[in-house]
Amino acid sequence: MNLEFIAIENFPMVNPGDDLAALIEAALAAQAITLTDGDVLCLAQKIVSKAENCYVDLRTVTPSAAAMALAEEVDKDPRKVQLILDESVEVVRKRPGVLIVEHRLGFVHANAGIDQSNISLEGVDQEDLCLLLPRDPDASAEGLKNRLEASSDCKLAVVINDSVGRAWRMGTVGLAIGVSGLTALEDYIGDHDIYGTELKVTQVAAADELAAGASLVMGQTTERVPLVLIRGYQRRANPEAEAQGVKPLIRPKQMDMFR
Amino acid sequence: MNLEFIAIENFPMVNPGDDLAALIEAALAAQAITLTDGDVLCLAQKIVSKAENCYVDLRTVTPSAAAMALAEEVDKDPRKVQLILDESVEVVRKRPGVLIVEHRLGFVHANAGIDQSNISLEGVDQEDLCLLLPRDPDASAEGLKNRLEASSDCKLAVVINDSVGRAWRMGTVGLAIGVSGLTALEDYIGDHDIYGTELKVTQVAAADELAAGASLVMGQTTERVPLVLIRGYQRRANPEAEAQGVKPLIRPKQMDMFR
Repeated sequence: MNLEFIAIENFPMVNPGDDLAALIEAALAAQAITLTDGDVLCLAQKIVSKAENCYVDLRTVTPSAAAMALAEEVDKDPRKVQLILDESVEVVRKRPGVLIVEHRLGFVHANAGIDQSNISLEGVDQEDLCLLLPRDPDASAEGLKNRLEASSDCKLAVVINDSVGRAWRMGTVGLAIGVSGLTALEDYIGDHDIYGTELKVTQVAAADELAAGASLVMGQTTERVPLVLIRGYQRRANPEAEAQGVKPLIRPKQMDMFR
Repeated sequence: MNLEFIAIENFPMVNPGDDLAALIEAALAAQAITLTDGDVLCLAQKIVSKAENCYVDLRTVTPSAAAMALAEEVDKDPRKVQLILDESVEVVRKRPGVLIVEHRLGFVHANAGIDQSNISLEGVDQEDLCLLLPRDPDASAEGLKNRLEASSDCKLAVVINDSVGRAWRMGTVGLAIGVSGLTALEDYIGDHDIYGTELKVTQVAAADELAAGASLVMGQTTERVPLVLIRGYQRRANPEAEAQGVKPLIRPKQMDMFR
């Protein structure tokens, strides 16, 4: 299997209400790309959130007493802390400058994945503007997949990725936060290795590996490549797992020794 | 930037003492691949460990009383537990079936990264055979890079990857455990986003993202693709960081809230 990660160039700035599937179709056409069966489209979370208008103007947020106390403790804007708390179910770690939570979608993310870079909305100052994760990234991925499959007449997959920090290691990596059309967690338990030995524990976070590769191509600053076409990925299809989107990648809290 | 991850097929089984650079050259030649400037070669840790004879025959390991007690607690072979302790500086988490340690190289890995699948050595039964991580993976990567650069007359990079479990999320992802010729952790702090806003905290674990993409192409079971050529990667070169190999990716313990 060879994998190609193809940058889709000149993607327009995305605004609330934009038809993302139509923008994707136009960007692919402008690059003379015809989708084929098995293609995986990886979208940056930011453009999905922008199209779905997940912006929040911090001037509309009134921090509670609890948010104000926590903001003092972690040295952050109390309005942003309120927003983080609203988006999450539990504070996992806190320290001045750091607030790591369990997002309502189950992800353990700093600041609940709320963005303040590479965003802009008319009438709101940069320092008052936040962008939340999409409300239901699996559903967003599925909606886009269905639209793009209908227009291309191909079997596709869609991954929405985000750059996320980790325990134990420095730097962010691209991770999948929404998936449709592929098995996010590939299960090799019970398979055999090249010497016939049964593999004991081997589950591969394939969607995260795709998201990581795509993240390199997207870049972090002025590259403006929020869409990457991944070509050549041979999936280990598991329809039951596939129907669960990104959820199999989330370690249940009771199984997590690092909470 | 487009990225290609090219599987190098028909790589031979690697044995202790094998000249890995020569095997890589032959495998590339057999696939009619000529290296070019900027190519990144990603090698599975397993073939590096095999060539460097990092095998251990568990029959030669005598568990200490401490290893025996810990083995009882985590329900593992006491000889393997002894080996894990020998390879590590600290037990990070333990639970029946699980032993997560800080490897002497600084990585937080289950079982100190010791393999028991996809390995074979004449005269040793499968259940007695273990394969350790390379003694100094950055040095291994550098040695291979220098050899391959000399024979190809190209500027190359080498990444050694391994499949590693994570906090918070299910499944393994490919991570870099040794790097030469590229900046493992790219630093964008002080850069500006597309709207001119300064990025506050943006360090990207580029070597881990390369390792993750390559891991998908390598597969986990019988694919037998321990070598992937990554083409098209445009590095953010930082000679000072580059000289440190994989070390910038390791979060110092005192900065790690998840130990």
